[in-house]
Amino acid sequence: MTSRDGYQWTEKSGLVQGVPSIGVIQPPSNIGQKQEQYDVIVVGAGYCGLTAARDAALSGLKVLLLEGRDRIGGRSWSSNIEGYPFEMGGTWVSWGQPHVWREISRYNMRRELELSYDFTKGVNHFTMTSADGSRNMSHEEEDKLMQSALEKFVNVDGNIGKTIMPFPHDEFHNPEVKRFDKLSVADRMAQIKHQLSPDEYTAVLSFVMLCSASTPEKTSFYEFLHWWALCNFSYEYCIEYLVKYKFRGGQSSFAIKFFQEAVDTGRLSYAFNSPVASITQNQQRVEVRTRAGDVYHAARLISAVPLNVLNDIAFSPPLAQGKRAAASTGHVNKCVKVHAECRGSELRSWTGVNYPNGQLLYALGDGTTPNGNTHVVAFGADHNRLTPEKDIEVTKQALQDLTKMELERVFHNWADDEFAKGAWFFSPPGLVTESLDDMRARQGNIFFASSDWAVGWRSFIDGAIEEGTRAAFNVIQDLKAKKAGGLIKSVL
Amino acid sequence: MTSRDGYQWTEKSGLVQGVPSIGVIQPPSNIGQKQEQYDVIVVGAGYCGLTAARDAALSGLKVLLLEGRDRIGGRSWSSNIEGYPFEMGGTWVSWGQPHVWREISRYNMRRELELSYDFTKGVNHFTMTSADGSRNMSHEEEDKLMQSALEKFVNVDGNIGKTIMPFPHDEFHNPEVKRFDKLSVADRMAQIKHQLSPDEYTAVLSFVMLCSASTPEKTSFYEFLHWWALCNFSYEYCIEYLVKYKFRGGQSSFAIKFFQEAVDTGRLSYAFNSPVASITQNQQRVEVRTRAGDVYHAARLISAVPLNVLNDIAFSPPLAQGKRAAASTGHVNKCVKVHAECRGSELRSWTGVNYPNGQLLYALGDGTTPNGNTHVVAFGADHNRLTPEKDIEVTKQALQDLTKMELERVFHNWADDEFAKGAWFFSPPGLVTESLDDMRARQGNIFFASSDWAVGWRSFIDGAIEEGTRAAFNVIQDLKAKKAGGLIKSVL
Repeated sequence: MTSRDGYQWTEKSGLVQGVPSIGVIQPPSNIGQKQEQYDVIVVGAGYCGLTAARDAALSGLKVLLLEGRDRIGGRSWSSNIEGYPFEMGGTWVSWGQPHVWREISRYNMRRELELSYDFTKGVNHFTMTSADGSRNMSHEEEDKLMQSALEKFVNVDGNIGKTIMPFPHDEFHNPEVKRFDKLSVADRMAQIKHQLSPDEYTAVLSFVMLCSASTPEKTSFYEFLHWWALCNFSYEYCIEYLVKYKFRGGQSSFAIKFFQEAVDTGRLSYAFNSPVASITQNQQRVEVRTRAGDVYHAARLISAVPLNVLNDIAFSPPLAQGKRAAASTGHVNKCVKVHAECRGSELRSWTGVNYPNGQLLYALGDGTTPNGNTHVVAFGADHNRLTPEKDIEVTKQALQDLTKMELERVFHNWADDEFAKGAWFFSPPGLVTESLDDMRARQGNIFFASSDWAVGWRSFIDGAIEEGTRAAFNVIQDLKAKKAGGLIKSVL
Repeated sequence: MTSRDGYQWTEKSGLVQGVPSIGVIQPPSNIGQKQEQYDVIVVGAGYCGLTAARDAALSGLKVLLLEGRDRIGGRSWSSNIEGYPFEMGGTWVSWGQPHVWREISRYNMRRELELSYDFTKGVNHFTMTSADGSRNMSHEEEDKLMQSALEKFVNVDGNIGKTIMPFPHDEFHNPEVKRFDKLSVADRMAQIKHQLSPDEYTAVLSFVMLCSASTPEKTSFYEFLHWWALCNFSYEYCIEYLVKYKFRGGQSSFAIKFFQEAVDTGRLSYAFNSPVASITQNQQRVEVRTRAGDVYHAARLISAVPLNVLNDIAFSPPLAQGKRAAASTGHVNKCVKVHAECRGSELRSWTGVNYPNGQLLYALGDGTTPNGNTHVVAFGADHNRLTPEKDIEVTKQALQDLTKMELERVFHNWADDEFAKGAWFFSPPGLVTESLDDMRARQGNIFFASSDWAVGWRSFIDGAIEEGTRAAFNVIQDLKAKKAGGLIKSVL
């Protein structure tokens, strides 16, 4: 099936909207004409919503899953063209990510992972393009430069961050860390600029902008410290946990397991292509109205809607002031992800950055397609923003600006996605310290779950599963307590 | 409630069997007179069995949990004396352990962890006692010595093990690693002895014997490589993941969450004090007979019985030859864990080893009791084995041999436990490469689950949860498939 999401370009067909994916659900609904009172409605079928819906259905609840798109996976999904999965969003997983690994283990998929990069083939170097020009270095030099530059960047405590953020799964374990959420990455760079070589300066900013996909001014230094702590305070583990292993069959081969297991309970109703217009609650129940005018009711609702689009739904009574303000501030990640299929095997072991002038700031050889070409994945950020579908020639040039490549096919995603308005969460200064509690707060019978405010691997698939797990657990406990109080007639 | 397990000594009361724990379940059974056909019987209420029983009950199955002891937790449980939890078995947890962390996150217990060691108080040094005598060094020197010694020990690939075991959650990802399961730790020491200083020699062996609680001859070098890879190939992460964080309320405060959640489904029957004598199956069902003569039936059975006691149950038809052989070989961990309450706060920041002559080879200050004394935990191994309940004076001397301490109270455990016959799994040479598949193999309607053959954190609470999760998942899928075939009348 072909999703409406994403764009594809080849010389022959030109720019075409939509990319095929095994994550597209057909038929898009299993509801039919029946009118049901659900125990819980889950809005959003990304990993958070899928996990919440699955766990709730497994526990005996009658669940309705509503999704605006035609597919599962939200900000993580894979195309499949001639059996090759290009990852359109969230891609990499690791055993350093506890919630995602528990699921990989449970679905017995640990042998379905493969290496993303492969430094054994063809052009085996790193191309660094900065304001001062372009040059190549070995991957060993790349690692050494990145490690040294990042250690200076994070070294606010004389212990490369280990003292200030010892426990990354408890956000303010050392409360001293809060002050670093007042700093932007630009502020932090100003503090340490004199300690950095020109190469280190480019290395830090290209890597951190790869993480935030924003601008140095709009990126919270705290949030990068959090990523650094999650990655064991080392560049080696940034690579190990953030970009090393992906699913041989693509992310959608993983997401479909959650969906199928939920369907198999016989307790999951679902409707795709069903963007939610409004959510209304009173003390007894929650009512959801889709843009098409369909109306559904449930005892509880789990909103697995990303922060940046939360204000697009009309809540009644309105969302609390703090929650609205957080959604209105939003996160700052404006990642543009571009895949290129390049003729030949030459670039399989290549990596490159192009900062600050490139419209794509980081790229790497990510695989070999069935016809022997190299798949290169490239990332653009808000600091020099590209809108690929507006001008494919500019996109092709941005790829060439990283290194010379002969393009067969180009894909892209996330520029202005209506159901995400940004890619993975990355916070501007102040948002996390001021608004995490607001983002997480339950409101009446509505629970809010998203990777965007996860405790641990916030921004990651892991964080989405963490939040979906927690939301289902809390709803189940809540309905059980209500039942004990005699108020709810549910299947519990 | 007081468990029969463990022993306690004070000057006043002398040696007394049994230790109080919140993990003791009273009344020990909720079955009453009713005769039921269960969907699944789970044998063993350690973390593996608890997880399997909980997940199966949550999914709608009718579950019976049978346990020989009077308490939950198996090889992990905590005493509670005057509100202070001494950890009688498995203790430490970490976000580097994905399955355990998922549960801590789900039960919202991340803020119920505390540091085990605390290097800010009193005697702040490491005491190293070897055949050459005893001396103190700083914890920084201790870390440096351990790191350097262990890196030489594991460096079989010129890359401190990273090349030979790149993916610790897939046992033979690089099949070359299998040959290291032919080597014992003694064999490996013979290879590198010339590279080690006397201090490094003692450091390696004391640390590895702390991990295996066996002898160098009986400990597989492969299995230590596996631990090393799980700990990110560094001594720093051995400390971080293996001995840093524990539950403020003790392990039993965690285990009870699994049990309570299963009970709350209304689908869990249980009987403690019910050691299983025999398990008989035909194509239709499984029959369990306890030593007391109670008989239970179910469609499926999950054995969460440790490897070293598997042959103590009479299976009919018999266990497969490979499984019996593996259980007969057994794992080699003969840990003796001794807790001491020592007068005053002096030893809170102390650590020490005493190898090879000590009957307790490693100890550390692990907490401060409510009356201001220091809690020291010490570990003995098979190489110089102590049987504490036989002679408490020898035990007290073994503590004094580590460093001078004024003893108020001593506890101990695991020496000859009838339901475990050893502590956490540690393999002798050959067992893992030859028998992992046998240990895991399903036999008819019986599924075998234990931390002892987990994929990732084998030997750990994490591995127990990994295995319990998998077993429940597989049983649920299996019963669902049977139901689709029309053979089973179950609640599915």
